[in-house]
Amino acid sequence: MTPNIHIGFLLFPNVTQLDLTGPAQILSRVPGAKTHLVWKRCEAVETDVRFSINPTVSFADCPQLDVLCVPGGFGVGDMVLDEEVLAFLRGQAEGARYVASVCNGALLLGAAGLLKGYRSACHWMWRDYLHRFGAIPVAERVVRDRNRISGGGVTAGIDFGLTLAAELAGEEMAKVLQLAFEYDPQPPFDCGTPDKAGSELVARLRAIQGERLAQAEQKIFAVPV
Amino acid sequence: MTPNIHIGFLLFPNVTQLDLTGPAQILSRVPGAKTHLVWKRCEAVETDVRFSINPTVSFADCPQLDVLCVPGGFGVGDMVLDEEVLAFLRGQAEGARYVASVCNGALLLGAAGLLKGYRSACHWMWRDYLHRFGAIPVAERVVRDRNRISGGGVTAGIDFGLTLAAELAGEEMAKVLQLAFEYDPQPPFDCGTPDKAGSELVARLRAIQGERLAQAEQKIFAVPV
Repeated sequence: MTPNIHIGFLLFPNVTQLDLTGPAQILSRVPGAKTHLVWKRCEAVETDVRFSINPTVSFADCPQLDVLCVPGGFGVGDMVLDEEVLAFLRGQAEGARYVASVCNGALLLGAAGLLKGYRSACHWMWRDYLHRFGAIPVAERVVRDRNRISGGGVTAGIDFGLTLAAELAGEEMAKVLQLAFEYDPQPPFDCGTPDKAGSELVARLRAIQGERLAQAEQKIFAVPV
Repeated sequence: MTPNIHIGFLLFPNVTQLDLTGPAQILSRVPGAKTHLVWKRCEAVETDVRFSINPTVSFADCPQLDVLCVPGGFGVGDMVLDEEVLAFLRGQAEGARYVASVCNGALLLGAAGLLKGYRSACHWMWRDYLHRFGAIPVAERVVRDRNRISGGGVTAGIDFGLTLAAELAGEEMAKVLQLAFEYDPQPPFDCGTPDKAGSELVARLRAIQGERLAQAEQKIFAVPV
């Protein structure tokens, strides 16, 4: 029997749930993997999608993780100032084989001081804030720098998950998983990056999300570095 | 203010959570959308990934849905024989604007008698069972037939979600959402369908999932048609 690989995702209020549920779907099928959803307490956590997910373990009871993965979301704005969360991440990162993020979860790793001098992916709208934490933002879908692995925005978590599955279980197993999840994407449009989408769609999205982004930005700039 | 569009996903034990969380992520951002996760009772439901999700509403309290969407998973094997579930689906389907599925959730719509004479997508491994319910299996990623819209296996739920978002809110809004979720996929391998993966990977996956598939098959064949 393959020994357990403990793969833990930080769960937090207002997480973009697909940041977490995408890679969790893939990584949970890695042979020997045990998937954990970790939060301060074992109480339901509201996601950004009007439903809540239940943690599987509390910070206090979480085993040393082999893979620590931090998803993103607008909730990151609150988390970057939460000492209990930052301390948990720092403690786990010390012993983890991989320290990972999806989307703007990278900013939370940054706020915990875990990305100084590391290249990292991040959601395009949040990428530049990485500078504040001494990280090097990279406009790629999956970025690896030493034991840091990061995915870009939201759906990049699936590409990230398969890339990490190949690291953990070999390329053939990752391919089996890609087939199992029928990952042969056919996006209906070709507008998944700001360059491809063009300035008009970017402006429209910024108009929708601008206020929440500004609120989060204030908190990101309030983090002592 | 746009009137509410009630979008409901069936939640059930051993659902492949990404079948549901992928399109829910996208569709919840459609202007005016209210997303529901519906199950018999408002109790935590175990997904296939070692974590549970909480329903937002019970069958009894669920409003008439504009979009009824059934995700898949190995749990479908039990659901196709569950009269309470089938009755709920039939009742909702009557008044819904769209009756939808992702992955082998199509088989559950089929078992409820809702796909007779309809073309439908389905996870490739489960597609042929659609014949049993009088549906016409189609090897495409997203299939539309009158008011039935279906996605193929698991990750096809994202393509499905964006396609449906365009139906509900127009193409420009769907594009804004594709940009918001940075959906510019870069699969690490090119093996997301049986044709692309080749017979060896298909055999390896069948060896892993064969027993659970056989168990589900027995139940699918036990559905009276």
